[in-house]
Amino acid sequence: MNISTDWIIEATFPLSLELRDQALDYQNQLTKPQGSLGQLERIAVQFAAMQGQLKPELEHIAITVFAADHGVAAEGVSAFPQAVTAEMVRNFSRGGAAICVLARQIGASFEVVNLGTVAELESLPYVVERRVAAGTANFCLDAAMKQAELASALTTGRDAAERAQQLGAQLFIGGEMGIANTTSATALAAALLDLPVCELAGPGTGVDANGVQHKVAVIERALLRHRQQLADPAEVLCCLGGFEIAALVGAYIRCAQLGVPVLVDGFITTSAALVACRINPGVRDWLLFSHNSAEPGHRAIQHSLGAEPLLDLGMRLGEGSGAAVAVPLFQAACALHSQMATFAEASVSGQD
Amino acid sequence: MNISTDWIIEATFPLSLELRDQALDYQNQLTKPQGSLGQLERIAVQFAAMQGQLKPELEHIAITVFAADHGVAAEGVSAFPQAVTAEMVRNFSRGGAAICVLARQIGASFEVVNLGTVAELESLPYVVERRVAAGTANFCLDAAMKQAELASALTTGRDAAERAQQLGAQLFIGGEMGIANTTSATALAAALLDLPVCELAGPGTGVDANGVQHKVAVIERALLRHRQQLADPAEVLCCLGGFEIAALVGAYIRCAQLGVPVLVDGFITTSAALVACRINPGVRDWLLFSHNSAEPGHRAIQHSLGAEPLLDLGMRLGEGSGAAVAVPLFQAACALHSQMATFAEASVSGQD
Repeated sequence: MNISTDWIIEATFPLSLELRDQALDYQNQLTKPQGSLGQLERIAVQFAAMQGQLKPELEHIAITVFAADHGVAAEGVSAFPQAVTAEMVRNFSRGGAAICVLARQIGASFEVVNLGTVAELESLPYVVERRVAAGTANFCLDAAMKQAELASALTTGRDAAERAQQLGAQLFIGGEMGIANTTSATALAAALLDLPVCELAGPGTGVDANGVQHKVAVIERALLRHRQQLADPAEVLCCLGGFEIAALVGAYIRCAQLGVPVLVDGFITTSAALVACRINPGVRDWLLFSHNSAEPGHRAIQHSLGAEPLLDLGMRLGEGSGAAVAVPLFQAACALHSQMATFAEASVSGQD
Repeated sequence: MNISTDWIIEATFPLSLELRDQALDYQNQLTKPQGSLGQLERIAVQFAAMQGQLKPELEHIAITVFAADHGVAAEGVSAFPQAVTAEMVRNFSRGGAAICVLARQIGASFEVVNLGTVAELESLPYVVERRVAAGTANFCLDAAMKQAELASALTTGRDAAERAQQLGAQLFIGGEMGIANTTSATALAAALLDLPVCELAGPGTGVDANGVQHKVAVIERALLRHRQQLADPAEVLCCLGGFEIAALVGAYIRCAQLGVPVLVDGFITTSAALVACRINPGVRDWLLFSHNSAEPGHRAIQHSLGAEPLLDLGMRLGEGSGAAVAVPLFQAACALHSQMATFAEASVSGQD
């Protein structure tokens, strides 16, 4: 079966510039000194432009965690054994992982999509099985995935975005789980940003300084191996990505096409966001950024995207956790904008 | 009537160091790389020590906004007319102000305590009338308040803390409203930290650079006027404070005595926290910090308290708004700690 990827370059949904301007004007009528809500003011105006309404609302959040294994784990780049990917899918299913706790806190819908753990899994609640293969190939030796596998993973992400929209999601959060996926994300970012690997690589789940050095060497070897294929972002993804990263790319692109705002999480998801924007630049309009991860390369990728994340809590867990933690700030921004009284409504005197 | 202030130096409630250590140990068993939840891990352990339980919870939040006018407004230090204090109390009562929207978002109990707007107010829902006087005296000319007024304002704050505890509050947020109160807070901080006024003064609700210069001159005049009375923190508060600031001091001290954690907001409330800690150093154990305000002096005061605020959103509204915005982060920290599965419970492999 041949799956087309033509859809990934289709036009994204337009922002309402008219509502953006109206919201900006309205905000300055609210009973507060102008600008005193800081970044929350910018966010409310963004949501007005995305939702096409003066008083945006943000109640329904959809979280999808994409999981898959990585062939490059064989190079010894992670602090945890590969079995953890599948074990954590079970933990997601039972509600014991960080992202599950956070999803409950914010009342989000939650699902896990398994694109290919090495260990096969029994049928599990909240887990959608969409197995592409038993993990990617080791990208030091070969392309991480075949073209058909890439197409399948992108489509799986697209389907998750469509499910989210059907649930009425006003915000989509993609999470990820995959032992060794900071290695893949670092390779993607190094290839697309043309930055030295050593400026982007970090400890991931917790390798030491020697481990980081080894990771750098592994990624440099892979970049050399694939140097003829790194001109096109979809090729870069095919050579160096992971199934869960490709699914994130597909989900982000589809959200932007459907007009569903995306809240990007940490290092891995931001590398997926970078790939998505390189494939389809209109995606950028629909991306919101949640936090600066402790993973050192995260800032460089966010900077390249012009991201202005709200939080800097030293988090580095992935799963979508940093994004989920930030959701109430976006909700506060929308609620303040939509529910505060204006100076006229409240009969409060303006500035002297 | 003579009100005693002896209570303000009574001992604060002890933290449970045993539970702190147990919580730290427990945290490292949860299904995540150690340290990967960043500052949220520190917060969960703090709550365990404050609540004396391994799995802290944070559901019930109490918000009290203290309002009062300032005689120093006569020096032209604010961008808004003095009438705004009373007008904003009405706006609080009707639910139209930022803090009201945020209180609803987090399901907090909410009240306003009016300690003395210049304009007298009709009876209003959610507003507790505890009028000390029609605003403080202009502290360029005289002490801001009399000793009896200070005692009354401190006691009013104490009563609010006790009401919060009776409601079952697991966190107390004090907010403030009072035109010209950044001038008072700056004067307090300059006196207690022995820092140049020009390093602490800022635009408040929005005066321009000339306005800030004028504000500096006004505060320097006041500090010179009261230079003989600045050795004792309660005297400093009496000379340079405001009724709402004194009430915050009283509330913070009483919360610490009752073992109710306090979430400090922005510039004004942090100056009150500084006064409270100078009066009774044990208060510090019960203070949590929410955000860096855009008011430039805020960092200096927080630094002097060893504060580690979570947010830096460029907010500068007061009312308790920055603290209220940060509440869900503290709730996430407690929920993650208390609800995540351990490696053993979830049968997830540990680090290699």
